[in-house]
Amino acid sequence: MRNRVTTRSARAMRVAGDRLLANIRSLGKIGATPDGGVSRLAFTSEDARGRELVRDLMIEAGLQTCVDSAANIIGHRPGERQDSPALMLGSHIDTVPNGGALDGAYGVLAAIEVARALNDHDTLLSHPLAIVAFNNEEGAFGTRGMWGAHAMVGALDESDLTAVDDRGRPVAELLFDMGGDAGHLDRAVWSADRVAAYLELHIEQGPVLESRSVQIGVVEAITGRSTLDITVRGKASHAGTTPMELRQDALVAAAQVILAVRDLAYPNGPVRVATVGSLSLAPNAWNVVPGVVTMQVDLRDVSDVAIRQATSRLRSEVLEIAMRTATAIEAENQYSVPAVSCDLGLRDVIAEASESLDLGHLTLPSGAGHDAQVIARIAPVGMIFVPSKGGISHTPEEYSAEDDLIAGANVLLQSVLAYDERYGRTF
Amino acid sequence: MRNRVTTRSARAMRVAGDRLLANIRSLGKIGATPDGGVSRLAFTSEDARGRELVRDLMIEAGLQTCVDSAANIIGHRPGERQDSPALMLGSHIDTVPNGGALDGAYGVLAAIEVARALNDHDTLLSHPLAIVAFNNEEGAFGTRGMWGAHAMVGALDESDLTAVDDRGRPVAELLFDMGGDAGHLDRAVWSADRVAAYLELHIEQGPVLESRSVQIGVVEAITGRSTLDITVRGKASHAGTTPMELRQDALVAAAQVILAVRDLAYPNGPVRVATVGSLSLAPNAWNVVPGVVTMQVDLRDVSDVAIRQATSRLRSEVLEIAMRTATAIEAENQYSVPAVSCDLGLRDVIAEASESLDLGHLTLPSGAGHDAQVIARIAPVGMIFVPSKGGISHTPEEYSAEDDLIAGANVLLQSVLAYDERYGRTF
Repeated sequence: MRNRVTTRSARAMRVAGDRLLANIRSLGKIGATPDGGVSRLAFTSEDARGRELVRDLMIEAGLQTCVDSAANIIGHRPGERQDSPALMLGSHIDTVPNGGALDGAYGVLAAIEVARALNDHDTLLSHPLAIVAFNNEEGAFGTRGMWGAHAMVGALDESDLTAVDDRGRPVAELLFDMGGDAGHLDRAVWSADRVAAYLELHIEQGPVLESRSVQIGVVEAITGRSTLDITVRGKASHAGTTPMELRQDALVAAAQVILAVRDLAYPNGPVRVATVGSLSLAPNAWNVVPGVVTMQVDLRDVSDVAIRQATSRLRSEVLEIAMRTATAIEAENQYSVPAVSCDLGLRDVIAEASESLDLGHLTLPSGAGHDAQVIARIAPVGMIFVPSKGGISHTPEEYSAEDDLIAGANVLLQSVLAYDERYGRTF
Repeated sequence: MRNRVTTRSARAMRVAGDRLLANIRSLGKIGATPDGGVSRLAFTSEDARGRELVRDLMIEAGLQTCVDSAANIIGHRPGERQDSPALMLGSHIDTVPNGGALDGAYGVLAAIEVARALNDHDTLLSHPLAIVAFNNEEGAFGTRGMWGAHAMVGALDESDLTAVDDRGRPVAELLFDMGGDAGHLDRAVWSADRVAAYLELHIEQGPVLESRSVQIGVVEAITGRSTLDITVRGKASHAGTTPMELRQDALVAAAQVILAVRDLAYPNGPVRVATVGSLSLAPNAWNVVPGVVTMQVDLRDVSDVAIRQATSRLRSEVLEIAMRTATAIEAENQYSVPAVSCDLGLRDVIAEASESLDLGHLTLPSGAGHDAQVIARIAPVGMIFVPSKGGISHTPEEYSAEDDLIAGANVLLQSVLAYDERYGRTF
């Protein structure tokens, strides 16, 4: 390998786009479903076959591969200074049931292509590269999401090993079959001084880039999320014989809660998005005034302060709705994940890489969760998005244009080069 | 029997309240459920045993009993003029699954006590009495409600004989076991000139009388009903990644429809009651913006014009909501039963009977359906209500105070006497 690449030759470097697309297709065949989707849940035989393919591709890319005790696959590429913290690239290859071929897999396969492009140009970076296929990002069988990433930051515990698959086998045992070791999860932990930065390339899984006709998204933050369980208790009664003024209609109250939740984000509320996605009512019969409605509220924003403010506003509005409708409404906080900001320096690197490739870019938040938000506990993180057709993900219809996929991989490559150029001499 | 009762002695006449209560208890034991309810669905062995008891009580009351081809039980009591059309009293003794002991049964048993009270006072009315226990008012096994009453007005057809019970036996066969004859349903038909008037005593099944502390309800009309199926089609999308302004949230649209339905009746809408009782959404997951919501709307009023007006207003509001929310909303009329007015003369008779007994009375509509609304096709109808505790019916908790039950039966007796007094000489 040559010692360092010149800025000029670096700018001309591109990934092998056709090979990237071919590899995406190959990996997508493993666990393919009849309707064009992919079911490759973590810890299954499909996942094991997918992992074999990824490991083979890493080896072809000259990476020194290993599987850590949490069954994360790690491909190492040496840097000029082996004592330097690594520049980590990664994502995951597991899917949800009947998901798509791009969510996760794209980022892993593109990172491998980045390594190959560097090889093809005999390029030695200052930083060592660590390309990671994180284990079990999707949280198969009720395990927590970003399971492997949590292991890497030392956040897994015994309770993360107790889930069982659909044949009743516990995660601890499944992990062993994937090359991990439940008894030594501590060996998977990386300290903060071992990672200089983390970059993740991913499909947007939302409609923003497509709707704005922009090819590259520079993620400003992974939104925090708060969910609340809301229970409205009214009184079930006969829909024909109960006068309106004597009703305690739980669904009429719930309708007002649904609109109050919408108002938390639109048109001018404190948070970016606010959703009631699930709801059930009892007795749920056409001739009975509903007695009880339960629903789940999901609030997301890049600011945890905004989420707290929205939650507090919702709680007080719910009290007013209960008064107005003669119902009792309980709102119970269920689940809370803090927002994670992307590093400003890495955002600049990604934006400049896009510009150097003449690609339009847009700064936007990630509404979905990613391995990056966990790795942020030990390193500055940056994320690159490419457009998702129709904003759809986690279904067989998940799709991104081939040009966009190749463009995103080239932005990842150019970002790696620019990052290394900018920060590689500062050790 | 003496020829005619004097007004004075008639006013002193009372039913045997204790016997009425005892008979209610006895009939309630047939089909009793562990939690205090009654399951005596039409065409079942429990129903057959209940019918035996009622027929025995009719015979004890000196009635000449018969079972018509639709298995309605009819007890005849002669009048002064046997060629006169009959004054018909009745209700039903079948129940919903795990219903209460009063719905229907109370009206039949009270009518039998009216006959006994007349006997005890050697009273011959001008009108013959026909006391009817209508078959299958509740519409067991998916048959139409007020089945036996429909037979009596000639409104049953072949399609009413095709339903099967939970062992697969068709109604035609079940009817035979109850003493009916599916091949000769026409023999059950009464022409309008055979019925002078129909009176039905029933529990309110709603909360109005209790909330106003009034013992007797004079029913002004049995409300008409219109039901609509509403389908809201938005677009399911990721609750984290889809910005508010790009959403087509079917549940946010549905919430506005629910409130628009409420506004059709409250505080100042065209109809008495308007309800969304059932609703379902898809995908119904906490992290997915709802794509489709279906719901059932129930509108009731004593005026069919009001129901039509409300339906039309709802249709135009639904279009506006669809525009505002970027959804498509279909509203399909599903089911429609016209309102039935009670006869003004019979309402007067009932009100005066209540006053003669020093019982408070209140004019109110019936929000539930009754045999009376079908018999209205061949005769003027009147209905008497007594309070339902908590407005509850069709459940084991259905309850009315003993005093109220006895008071209602005495109002029925006094109404029969007053009706006969007022109209008996006009033949």
